Parts: sequence; C-alpha cells; structure tokens
Amino acid sequence: MNLNKMQLRLLLYLYERNGFSNGVQVTTPALARFLNTSQQSASRVMIKMEREGFIERRMVGRSCYVRLTKKSINELSELYAELKRIIEKPVEVVLEGRVFSGMGEGAYYISLPWYRDQIRKKLGFDPYPGTLNVNLLSWDSIQNRTLVGKYADIWIEGFKDRNRTYGGARAILASFNNSDLCAILYIERTHYGENVIEVISPVYLRGKYGLSDGDKVKITVTLPAANFSAAGQIPHEDKGQILPKT
Amino acid sequence: MNLNKMQLRLLLYLYERNGFSNGVQVTTPALARFLNTSQQSASRVMIKMEREGFIERRMVGRSCYVRLTKKSINELSELYAELKRIIEKPVEVVLEGRVFSGMGEGAYYISLPWYRDQIRKKLGFDPYPGTLNVNLLSWDSIQNRTLVGKYADIWIEGFKDRNRTYGGARAILASFNNSDLCAILYIERTHYGENVIEVISPVYLRGKYGLSDGDKVKITVTLPAANFSAAGQIPHEDKGQILPKT
Repeated sequence: MNLNKMQLRLLLYLYERNGFSNGVQVTTPALARFLNTSQQSASRVMIKMEREGFIERRMVGRSCYVRLTKKSINELSELYAELKRIIEKPVEVVLEGRVFSGMGEGAYYISLPWYRDQIRKKLGFDPYPGTLNVNLLSWDSIQNRTLVGKYADIWIEGFKDRNRTYGGARAILASFNNSDLCAILYIERTHYGENVIEVISPVYLRGKYGLSDGDKVKITVTLPAANFSAAGQIPHEDKGQILPKT
Repeated sequence: MNLNKMQLRLLLYLYERNGFSNGVQVTTPALARFLNTSQQSASRVMIKMEREGFIERRMVGRSCYVRLTKKSINELSELYAELKRIIEKPVEVVLEGRVFSGMGEGAYYISLPWYRDQIRKKLGFDPYPGTLNVNLLSWDSIQNRTLVGKYADIWIEGFKDRNRTYGGARAILASFNNSDLCAILYIERTHYGENVIEVISPVYLRGKYGLSDGDKVKITVTLPAANFSAAGQIPHEDKGQILPKT
C-alpha cells in the first residue's frame, strides 16, 4: 500500500464509477467535497496521481474526464489481496493459565442428566464429570476470555426443579494443550471472576496430563474468519436470535 | 476509510502478527523500519492510534505489547468490504463507434470452413458470413479496445494452403446494442488501426438494425471481476500458455 488516504479514496471513487473502463467526468469542487478537502488539495491529488501514472486525464471542452490505469488496478488489487489474506485467515485465540481446584461443584452439575444430555447433543461429546478451573494470568489471556465469550454461542439451557433453579451456560469448542477436544463454559451464575475459565472435555484432563494445582495449561480457540468479513464487524454479546435473554 | 497510510500499515502489521488476540511486542525502531519512517513518527502514530481507541498498549517490564481493538477490526473489515464490493464487481466495458463498409473481405474469410468451424466450436455460434466494421470514436472506446484485447483469449487458428497463409485471430464474446450475441475479433493481420473493431455475430446485424454507414452502435463486454482479485493484477497480452506465439 503505497497510497495515502486521499489517493486511495480517489481511486475508489473512480473505480466505483467504472473509471477503469470509462472516463469519469470529474470536477474539482465535487471531488473536493467527496475527499472532504479543499479544491486546491483535490486538484493537487489529481495532478500528483496523474504524474505518477495512476490516472489519465483528458479535457473534452471544459470537462475533465479521468480514467484509472493498470497501475491503479494493480495497487487496489494488491491492497485487497493483502486484506483478504489476513482478514480471511482464521483467528487463533490462546488462553493460558494455571489449574486450580474448585469446590467440586463442576462434577455435580456435569453429572446431572439435564446438562450432560445437552452437552452430548450440542457439543458432540460425553463430558467427563467435572470441570477444570483455569486461572488466567496474562493480560492477553484475560482479554481473550472476553473475545472468545463473544463467539461462545452454543447454549446449554438451565432448568428448574421444585427446590431451585439451575442456570444456563454458553459454550464454545476449543483445544486443550493443542491436542484434546474441550469446551470453554461461560456459566451464567458463577462465583469466579473475569480471570477464570471453566473447561470440560470428554477426557479426564487432570489425569491424562498429570496436572496439579498451579500447573500451566493452554486452551486454544479457532475463530472463523468469516465472522469478520461477512458481517463486516465482530459479533456483539447480545445476539438475541441465538441466545435467550437472561 | 478514515485511516492514513501509516495508520493502516500499523493495523495491518499488528493484524498479521495476530494482534487481535495477542499482544504484539513492538519496539519503536522495528516499527519505524516497517513503516519506513523515523522513530519519532512511528512513536507518534502509536500514541495517536491509542488515543483514538484503535490499539491498546501495555508495558511489561521494558517491553511494549500492543493489541488491536474492536474498532480497528471494524475499520479493516469495512475497508475490506468496500474493496471487495467494487473489485469483485464484473467490469462492463463499452465500445461505441460508427459502422463503416470494408472491402467485403470479412465475408470471404468467415465463409471459409476452417474459420467457420472454429467459430462454431469455440464461440458457440454459427457466424453470419461477414464482419461488421466499427470505427471507434471516443477516447474511452479506443482505450477500451486495448483493455478488452487483453481478455480476448479465444484463439481462432490460422492455416496455410498451397498458395498462401491465413492469419489467426483472438476473439471475445460481447453484446451488440445490449441485445444480440456477438464477438469482437482481434485479427492478427489487419489493415485497420487501433480505432477499429471487427464484429461477428450469428445475426446479420446490418439487416436486423437497418444500419447504414455512419450509424452508431454499441458493443459491450463484461469482464469477470475474478481476473482482478484472483491474479492480483490484470492479465498481460503475452499469455504464452493460452495463445501461441505469432
């Protein structure tokens, strides 16, 4: 990208008006308005762009017609290709932290058929009865917890029995220590703070990895690039259509 | 696009290094080199971008870690979407000119089975035995003749009999007066200049449109957008693989 803002805008202006195949009639006042600048600046940009071979100008009577050259097309294509490459690349989000012991509540909840069945159906695995608590330590990981939370859209419903209500959770699939399938739960009612994630897996992770409290673990989420390019922006927490209001 | 060149480059730099999910360690000298500017300018860009909410910076010891915010992602996505929209739109190229009479050679050549068969097979229609000569009048149309020529990659081979050789031509499908199928021929050996095109069609165009010499006609070619985005640049005249060297 060798163009500055105004030069890029000029090319986009012409491209949009079919300036690659037709001369676009350009007046300095109109262009100045479009570029949000003075007529002198607009005129200067055009002169510079013509001198550098990005545009061709031709006077027909008192009207100025401007065409884009191949050089412009190449410049725009290149920028587009660069953006495409990096924006359409899936985003790998890493959460790192240290294992700690909870009160054993996780095991109780995951064992409840109501939750277990939903996890089987919606996440595609039969969960080991227990959650692994991970205390996120780095700035990146804590930020990433929030980021990943925006994409955690698998909804595990809560329920009510005669004694109490059981809260729901949002979940997202992830990879544990780059090898095992797991899911991060965003539990509606949790007494943990923003620096903790709770992880479930078909595998007994503590056993498989011989984990003791304080040991470091890594959970990786791959966010689809499509979310960025398709919607034009990242999704919001309040996707009313997918998740019920809580 | 509200970013200037350096700001955009900074965002691309961070995005490429996974700066949306991880803090990227940035040093002013390295960034200055990347942005091809002074350390003062590099530093100023970062301060400005942080103040405007595009990036978040954090010092860890003496190291500076920089992350992209949602605002940056939205800005990049928006620019990407704008480029995508205009670059992936097919390009309509219009050639306008006035009909004139040639020497009747066209009718002779198109009638030759060698040419006629190839046109049937490669262009998909049985040509009316004759070419319509169009004298391009506008600057746009003459430029567009060259542009379209780069995409005319249907090769009609020449041949040799005992008396002489018959040249080849490149062809591209087009639309005549926005309604009839036709093809523009780029004939190897022609005595016409850069301002003339020769058009063939399954239809007797002169008859159908009641054309006399001097009447205006319009030929439209739709170039696929894919050529721009896929290759990153428009194709060159010398595509050795598709067309034989002449």
